[in-house]
Amino acid sequence: MLNNIRIVLVETTHSGNIGSAARAMKTMGLSRLYLAAPKCSPDQQALALSAGAEDVVKNARLTENLDQAIADCSLVIGTSARLRHLQNSLIEPRQCAAEALRHAGGGEEVAIIFGRERIGLLNEELMKCRYHLTIPANPDYSSLNLAMAVQLISYELRMAWLQTQQEQDKVMPVSAIGDTGNKPPLYPTAQQLEHFFSHTEQCYRQLGFIQNQGVMPKLRRLYQRARLETNELNILQGMLTAVEKYRIANKDNS
Amino acid sequence: MLNNIRIVLVETTHSGNIGSAARAMKTMGLSRLYLAAPKCSPDQQALALSAGAEDVVKNARLTENLDQAIADCSLVIGTSARLRHLQNSLIEPRQCAAEALRHAGGGEEVAIIFGRERIGLLNEELMKCRYHLTIPANPDYSSLNLAMAVQLISYELRMAWLQTQQEQDKVMPVSAIGDTGNKPPLYPTAQQLEHFFSHTEQCYRQLGFIQNQGVMPKLRRLYQRARLETNELNILQGMLTAVEKYRIANKDNS
Repeated sequence: MLNNIRIVLVETTHSGNIGSAARAMKTMGLSRLYLAAPKCSPDQQALALSAGAEDVVKNARLTENLDQAIADCSLVIGTSARLRHLQNSLIEPRQCAAEALRHAGGGEEVAIIFGRERIGLLNEELMKCRYHLTIPANPDYSSLNLAMAVQLISYELRMAWLQTQQEQDKVMPVSAIGDTGNKPPLYPTAQQLEHFFSHTEQCYRQLGFIQNQGVMPKLRRLYQRARLETNELNILQGMLTAVEKYRIANKDNS
Repeated sequence: MLNNIRIVLVETTHSGNIGSAARAMKTMGLSRLYLAAPKCSPDQQALALSAGAEDVVKNARLTENLDQAIADCSLVIGTSARLRHLQNSLIEPRQCAAEALRHAGGGEEVAIIFGRERIGLLNEELMKCRYHLTIPANPDYSSLNLAMAVQLISYELRMAWLQTQQEQDKVMPVSAIGDTGNKPPLYPTAQQLEHFFSHTEQCYRQLGFIQNQGVMPKLRRLYQRARLETNELNILQGMLTAVEKYRIANKDNS
């Protein structure tokens, strides 16, 4: 289950932090590290600080941008300061771990994103996240080192995972295992969501409804909060296509 | 309460670890650091790695040995590997935090001891401890950095402390609760929602997208689950109106 969870570091500046993060992950049984547009390379310093976790550094996936690192993920969580405008989507590490495990356990790909050392994640990056993870630190001094934050989240993931293992150990009779008939919903990937959002924006710009930057962030927030399911996305996409078709059929007359 | 809890580092070799441990403590609201017979001094390296937590390094108490550092404590907890002979006294971080808080809350002095970077605490030191704290790490790679271990334990202490605060808040008289300045979002009435749903259905029937009974229940479920806010409803309503307007303008040609 932990194998379906990736840690994504965005534009990391210090390679030592990559190494320390890798070590932190491995101590808790995580191994999938993604480096989105890193500002440093996973160099000797990274390997040195990874201690026995060189494998995690060496197997890290480098991507050109954040979108590539999360494209196939259906649950995306981004770390952030406790910002007022994110209020409804904020979760703390323990809840984050439970949520990540629940989805990873269903076979979904889950990404937990950590931002730049100094400025964290940008607003447009936070908009790609279903949840915003905030560590309940000392309000007078909340400056956790990047790798320390990775350590805390990895720890909570491991604790949540150990708990699921314990529950499995309690074991239900074999006859009780099987299709409950209650299939969990499917969720779209980050890439599919991005496609939907850009399609929506394009369509409503052409209709003249979207004229400034205010609308899309609100729609993103709404659909992230709702955690759009695949069949719902299909409907919204179908509605969009219906509007488009109508427009094209009437293009010459408008 | 956190003020009654001290972190004791025994014979630390790398001053950077002292600085990182200080930073880790401060992010979680702990401030009392004891250095028992350190093998290095809290030097510039320590101050540099403490980032904004220089005060914790500077106020650290240096003692000649472990006994002096814990002399006035009535609860002493030592970190250790998961040793079989300690079995009966082993606790994990969460339980450790709860126990530490319970005692600290009663005014007792509590010490949590972290051993040497390579070899941890000696057997005779472990014998001075009521509990032996073990972090449930990956058995294939359990090598947590010293400051990372301090971070995890400090985090659990803070979580436990926050919980006691919440419980206290629950018994606060109503008169003590004031305006938080945090405006809750506005929500539409059931009637407004109904209006939106029927408007949506009408519009997309006319466009030919809705042809049976399947779509609307799914959209209702989605927006109910999201708990649509008033400003979001206004946007969705605006999008619908934009489509309608376009249709009316092109009516004669379709």
